[in-house]
Amino acid sequence: MIESLERFKERVNRISRLGQIAALAGWDQQTYMPTGAAEARGEQMAVISEVIHELSVSDEMGALLGAAESDTAGLDEDTDEVRMLRVARRGFDLARKLPASLVADMSRHQSVAMGAWQEARSTNDFSKFAPALQITIDQVRESAGYLGYTNHIYDALIDQYEMGSSQAEIAAMYSDLTPHLVKLAAAIRAAAQVDDAAIHGDFPIATQKETTLKIVQALGYDLTRGRQDEAAHPFCTSFSRNDVRITTRYNAMFMQQALYASLHEAGHAMYEQGIPERFAGTPLSGAASLGIHESQSRLWENQVGRSRAFANYVFPILQTAYPETLSSSSPEAYYKAINRVESSLIRVEADEVTYNLHVALRFELECALLTGDLSIADLPEAWNARMKEYLGIEPPTNSVGVLQDVHWSIGLIGYFPTYTVGNLVSAQLWKTIREAIPDIDSNVESGNFAPLLGWLNKNVHSYGSKYLPGELVVKATGEPLKPAYYVEYLNAKYGEIYGL
Amino acid sequence: MIESLERFKERVNRISRLGQIAALAGWDQQTYMPTGAAEARGEQMAVISEVIHELSVSDEMGALLGAAESDTAGLDEDTDEVRMLRVARRGFDLARKLPASLVADMSRHQSVAMGAWQEARSTNDFSKFAPALQITIDQVRESAGYLGYTNHIYDALIDQYEMGSSQAEIAAMYSDLTPHLVKLAAAIRAAAQVDDAAIHGDFPIATQKETTLKIVQALGYDLTRGRQDEAAHPFCTSFSRNDVRITTRYNAMFMQQALYASLHEAGHAMYEQGIPERFAGTPLSGAASLGIHESQSRLWENQVGRSRAFANYVFPILQTAYPETLSSSSPEAYYKAINRVESSLIRVEADEVTYNLHVALRFELECALLTGDLSIADLPEAWNARMKEYLGIEPPTNSVGVLQDVHWSIGLIGYFPTYTVGNLVSAQLWKTIREAIPDIDSNVESGNFAPLLGWLNKNVHSYGSKYLPGELVVKATGEPLKPAYYVEYLNAKYGEIYGL
Repeated sequence: MIESLERFKERVNRISRLGQIAALAGWDQQTYMPTGAAEARGEQMAVISEVIHELSVSDEMGALLGAAESDTAGLDEDTDEVRMLRVARRGFDLARKLPASLVADMSRHQSVAMGAWQEARSTNDFSKFAPALQITIDQVRESAGYLGYTNHIYDALIDQYEMGSSQAEIAAMYSDLTPHLVKLAAAIRAAAQVDDAAIHGDFPIATQKETTLKIVQALGYDLTRGRQDEAAHPFCTSFSRNDVRITTRYNAMFMQQALYASLHEAGHAMYEQGIPERFAGTPLSGAASLGIHESQSRLWENQVGRSRAFANYVFPILQTAYPETLSSSSPEAYYKAINRVESSLIRVEADEVTYNLHVALRFELECALLTGDLSIADLPEAWNARMKEYLGIEPPTNSVGVLQDVHWSIGLIGYFPTYTVGNLVSAQLWKTIREAIPDIDSNVESGNFAPLLGWLNKNVHSYGSKYLPGELVVKATGEPLKPAYYVEYLNAKYGEIYGL
Repeated sequence: MIESLERFKERVNRISRLGQIAALAGWDQQTYMPTGAAEARGEQMAVISEVIHELSVSDEMGALLGAAESDTAGLDEDTDEVRMLRVARRGFDLARKLPASLVADMSRHQSVAMGAWQEARSTNDFSKFAPALQITIDQVRESAGYLGYTNHIYDALIDQYEMGSSQAEIAAMYSDLTPHLVKLAAAIRAAAQVDDAAIHGDFPIATQKETTLKIVQALGYDLTRGRQDEAAHPFCTSFSRNDVRITTRYNAMFMQQALYASLHEAGHAMYEQGIPERFAGTPLSGAASLGIHESQSRLWENQVGRSRAFANYVFPILQTAYPETLSSSSPEAYYKAINRVESSLIRVEADEVTYNLHVALRFELECALLTGDLSIADLPEAWNARMKEYLGIEPPTNSVGVLQDVHWSIGLIGYFPTYTVGNLVSAQLWKTIREAIPDIDSNVESGNFAPLLGWLNKNVHSYGSKYLPGELVVKATGEPLKPAYYVEYLNAKYGEIYGL
């Protein structure tokens, strides 16, 4: 036992546990909190964040970390201890690079900017958001300066969410991917459209609650260590591997909204539930990155949940739950309906084919804003032009265009590409899994999800945040991330559905 | 503006907000937390309690408090500032008196003792709890030594919960009260019994949820700043005056369990909701004492909720909710049924007449254990003898006797009498209120609870913890606490019901 390491872990455990309680307060805020409590909750969240930040960047923490590093200097590079200290060092150094005054300015501006964005979106007036967005961009540029980068200002930002990635890598990813997606989306627009009447109708919500819960439990989401509640914007949150909660939302005329939100969030949740107990309260207890997290939610939502095998599995369950609504439908009609592709305006409602085009345009616009190649004033026009180019449609208003996402208003610049990384990783994992578990389709069709979850537990979840996302992809699939697998997956699937 | 005072308040606000988040984690633990999360939650609660404790007793806090006291030395005794600092000083000094090692020992022993108690209760074997209880008593004695007292060791303990009270005061209270209660209970046992068939039957739970919520809302419990959930042991908890939550529990054959638990907890909740915003995050944001808190819950549960006027108000609501179950009953039959008196074994199920006899015996046994006049080995026998003396019945087993309450297992010694204080204060307030609002009965009967809540807001809630409980009773009722009002209330009410 290395004493300095134990002291360091004890201190990190304290910070980690406070973070878990803060996350619980966040969960409550979006599920059960009475409306009148908003201001008090804001104050509570600000206080606990401040306490956590102070503990995290304290000189004492720096000394404990330094001592633990010295005393473990001889250990194997691949031990938990060395990796843990590496993750901690990275977080500590990043947090110390930002001056407290800038952190405070950004935090204060965030609520102003979010208010301006809400106002702008509800009145469809971009000019009400523009000044706040300009300040956000300036602050983000300043923070990137402190964080540091060699090639591109975006490097400093993407590296916060997708560790080890860079603007060049992300740009290359989209150069590879975008033309294929544009082409496939255009081909589908020109083909005979899929009828999705099968999934619209009368779906009373009480039955949706029961049924979605039964299905995510069948996938392997452990309800003794989790639960599902309702929220306006579905999410997954974790307060330790033994308390990982999901939320969903219900539409009484369209059950797929709840079901696919539940599948998505359960994918996130099974990742968190699968991170080993030995990492609890340490810097390795998290996910490898946002992209890897998204790969898990997307794999269960799309590669599994929108497969023909899953349609064969789930349709009888849905038909039993809603015998009248689904009396004249079939698994095959259901399969087609859930895979309808449509060039649409809103990212969060987009299908597998068009989704990443929405993200690509955000990435490109973010880069241009940061380098100064694009001014805030020209942003709406640039948005609309790219929508036309990639998706063949133009937003009739800025509210359903450039103002649709919350991210920029809360300073999340450099975050969007993690969604695409997640989608690509899910396809590459799926290809590997299909080779590793040859009878995966019949497993899914018969509701036997244990082999799949077992594979993900072993090859992804068990590592926590021990490895960088790039390292993890190589460990799990044998090679670095390649957009080609996603393109192959889409072409095969949608070629068949749309007869291309 | 006094700068040192502002610095002190800023620091106290931080501690107060962390305490609110810890309370939220406690609420979640008893309502929605998945079972597998128990250990992680224990760790989270331990960490945040430790952080709060360290901040509360730090030298820095002592210096801030001292500076604020110096700089406010000339202010009027009755200002919020002076009172706030007095409450803070009291808490700071008490917390600093206990050595950290004793606090840690007590905290560690608590979970052991609670486990032993649960085991002893479920196997009906007092000897399994006795050794742990001996350690608890020894620790509590030691802590009382550090806290300090002049007359009786119990003084140091009761003063933690009912500030300014003493063993002598509590003993005098019971000397006054107990003979009257014993006499009334015996007279009722000898009289013709009340039939409570009217309140037993088929009460589907979904309707209970709706109906109890509608009723507590009608009383004045503000649901934009609160909510009601289900818990095994009903409680009220507050995370600021704008987020005060209650819980209740349902029995499908006996709606009164949920209804009266809800009335009780809503009484607590309306107190917390009524504490002024200007006290938020300061040492004055709490209740005056546990006894004053209990006076509010009991007043709404008993003086209001078990009155004939309330029976006339609520019975039609219940009959509309359960037309079949209550078809042949009446408000008068309902009134009698909810006021049935019975000498029974379990404190938490006891009626207004016998309840305080249960508490009196606990107080007497606690005193005897602390002074050494009673040994742990002789405790069950002493319990049973007093039950016989006060209530005329003897517990057939220790599980429904000396082992029934959780309090002693978690170190709560000196706490029980606050329940009786609450009952007596509720009766004394009720007498004052009946004079101040002459048409209170017709108000209650017509569902107009605003005048009553307004009176309580003004005369009790608005003070927060600015005054000691004894001071508050005088402010609100014009005289110190007198058990006679409770005795008069019981004799009048139950004399009529039982024809004594």
